[in-house]
Amino acid sequence: MPFIALEGPEGAGKSVQLRKLSVDLKIAGLDPIVTKEPGGTLLGRHIRGILLDAQSCGLDPFAEFLLFQADRAQHALEVLRPALKNGRFVLSDRYIFSSIAYQIHGRGLDEKVCRQVIKTATQGLMPDLTIILMVSPKVGLNRAIGRSTDLDRIEREEWSFHQRVAEAYESFIHTFPNCVRVDAEQEESEVYRDILQKLAERFPASNIPPVAVRG
Amino acid sequence: MPFIALEGPEGAGKSVQLRKLSVDLKIAGLDPIVTKEPGGTLLGRHIRGILLDAQSCGLDPFAEFLLFQADRAQHALEVLRPALKNGRFVLSDRYIFSSIAYQIHGRGLDEKVCRQVIKTATQGLMPDLTIILMVSPKVGLNRAIGRSTDLDRIEREEWSFHQRVAEAYESFIHTFPNCVRVDAEQEESEVYRDILQKLAERFPASNIPPVAVRG
Repeated sequence: MPFIALEGPEGAGKSVQLRKLSVDLKIAGLDPIVTKEPGGTLLGRHIRGILLDAQSCGLDPFAEFLLFQADRAQHALEVLRPALKNGRFVLSDRYIFSSIAYQIHGRGLDEKVCRQVIKTATQGLMPDLTIILMVSPKVGLNRAIGRSTDLDRIEREEWSFHQRVAEAYESFIHTFPNCVRVDAEQEESEVYRDILQKLAERFPASNIPPVAVRG
Repeated sequence: MPFIALEGPEGAGKSVQLRKLSVDLKIAGLDPIVTKEPGGTLLGRHIRGILLDAQSCGLDPFAEFLLFQADRAQHALEVLRPALKNGRFVLSDRYIFSSIAYQIHGRGLDEKVCRQVIKTATQGLMPDLTIILMVSPKVGLNRAIGRSTDLDRIEREEWSFHQRVAEAYESFIHTFPNCVRVDAEQEESEVYRDILQKLAERFPASNIPPVAVRG
């Protein structure tokens, strides 16, 4: 069964889409494991608390990167590899492209060193498909602000940071063959229709709910 | 002013020696900053809690390594570099050789990748002198058990792990020119005398208390 990652900038609507998708996959009998980074394990939940805490200002950018990779290594060990080994459909809210977008491009860290660390942390485990929900920083941050006045440490970053993250995600679609783009500035139901379409195109033989169900 | 790291296997007596040394350096007017890894910063104290918690079993070895480096990157940014820039005498309870001994040699992680991460995390900052307090696993673990029946996650590791850590520390003395060995199986006062001797040899022009004070 495939390993699918949902990615995108702040306010792309990943969580809502992931909930819809997991319900429909369950109905279709595919019994998915729905997980996330950071925070897919007990260790990850500790790390997530540190990373999103608005008080953690002055966090060294490489320390931040390393915390995300520690979460990821434990997630791959405890959740992802066992699930895939057991033939489960895996849906993850964020995976390695978040670190490439936010830490390497957003923070400007050394790409070669960071990609080596990511590769070691995941033991080279890559998603079969990464769906990037694309929103501009303007739309995405407005949504994040609309959702809550209590923004987390990453949402509070300066405008140019969010701009670099969005540009990085756009670039992945042309650079990585297993990354596809969905326009997440559309209505929720349209975004969902496009996600199902991308899944059906990539995995035509699977039981993925037909687009018509919700499209 | 110099940056000195105290290193060694479990039960080497680093904390006791560090306390004595910091008192005597204060008396000598050298006003040292005494710090430690992990746990020299607020972030580090969170990470230390995770790393030493006996419940954190099944921690991925590379995740463990990354947590130590996140602590170190923040420590270098917040504590070490500012202190050295301000001309302070810095004494650290553990630094990079702990990661080389415990994670690379003890856990058997990829040396090339790990040393690159350490270099990036510290931005190449190395101690002027690393004093390795050497005890055999037999003596060291007996001391740790005598100190407390509630051993931490690392103290509880299997015998062969502690053996590899001790062998690694012994090897550093021959490999790294700024590492010196002190026999920590001696009496506390003898260990302290040898530490002062090593410091006086390396920094003859400094105000380090003469060996005669306590020797």
